[in-house]
Amino acid sequence: MESLRTAADAPRERILAAAATLFYRHGINATGIGELVEVAGVSKRTLYQQFASKDDLVAAYLQRATQSGRLLDRRLEQPELTPRERLLALFDPPPPTFRGCPLHNASVELTEPGHPGRAVIVAYKRRFQERVTEQARAAGARDPEALGRRLSVLFEGATALATSLDDRDAAFDHARPLARAVIEEALPTDG
Amino acid sequence: MESLRTAADAPRERILAAAATLFYRHGINATGIGELVEVAGVSKRTLYQQFASKDDLVAAYLQRATQSGRLLDRRLEQPELTPRERLLALFDPPPPTFRGCPLHNASVELTEPGHPGRAVIVAYKRRFQERVTEQARAAGARDPEALGRRLSVLFEGATALATSLDDRDAAFDHARPLARAVIEEALPTDG
Repeated sequence: MESLRTAADAPRERILAAAATLFYRHGINATGIGELVEVAGVSKRTLYQQFASKDDLVAAYLQRATQSGRLLDRRLEQPELTPRERLLALFDPPPPTFRGCPLHNASVELTEPGHPGRAVIVAYKRRFQERVTEQARAAGARDPEALGRRLSVLFEGATALATSLDDRDAAFDHARPLARAVIEEALPTDG
Repeated sequence: MESLRTAADAPRERILAAAATLFYRHGINATGIGELVEVAGVSKRTLYQQFASKDDLVAAYLQRATQSGRLLDRRLEQPELTPRERLLALFDPPPPTFRGCPLHNASVELTEPGHPGRAVIVAYKRRFQERVTEQARAAGARDPEALGRRLSVLFEGATALATSLDDRDAAFDHARPLARAVIEEALPTDG
């Protein structure tokens, strides 16, 4: 889809790019429409032509985030690594701009039960666990589902604790030895 | 301090009680001062007599939350349990009203580096890890600091994933078998 971008798409893309920066850096509820249109360089009218409401923009921002390749989960697809190395790579130190998982952060902020962003978050987190399980299976895990569940909740802990402690490295340093032990125990020694 | 409460304290207590409900349920940035004073049954003037700003109220809310005895961490002090059982009890299913750790949730929302709430959150999370380590030591762990780090990041994962998945039980069900394995491996078998 990205390669088919046309001039008519540009305002929508600019709005989503502004949302990706402002929602992640400052939070969703702390970011007003006025700030979004200023950073995107569009009018409010244009924004509401593209998105029926802020809620719809938030859902589109979340959907885009899951496809952006900027999440740490891209480590699960690094072609130069073995499946075992990909599972370990999840727990490598995050980049300096890291401020937790944008999907999780949104789940903290979007407290209305019917918010259209909530389904995007839940689907993403379930799919993430499946992807970890797929790598666990490819690595030869005896019980790939169990390893997928364990590494998913541990990864959520590392990313959330990075925000709580305001210290990326400490959180991932806490999680890494346990992740390594869990992976070693679950995989055949020649894996 | 609670037992020394006087009539002069009542408005402050009512504001903090309203904040505890609204900030946790709907989020900090989504809760306006107007809603707070309405639920607390005080005037805006009274609120600003008690708290210089919303930021100061948020910091007081967080400080109060760490002492409230309503957090899941109270499980670490249950007198009827052994230290080993207390560590396991952290991963028991949370109550139906659970919507993640209020301190972590605030860390997601308070993105301004100088916000007075941030220091409260970081101090709480560090102290939590120390308290887990203390129970690990009392349970006879070979390396109580390592067990404290491992269980702290895993507990953060369970509480954060409960919010992300919008499913308390699934998140804690994922974390519990790993917590049990980590505790079993770290403690003497007769512990």
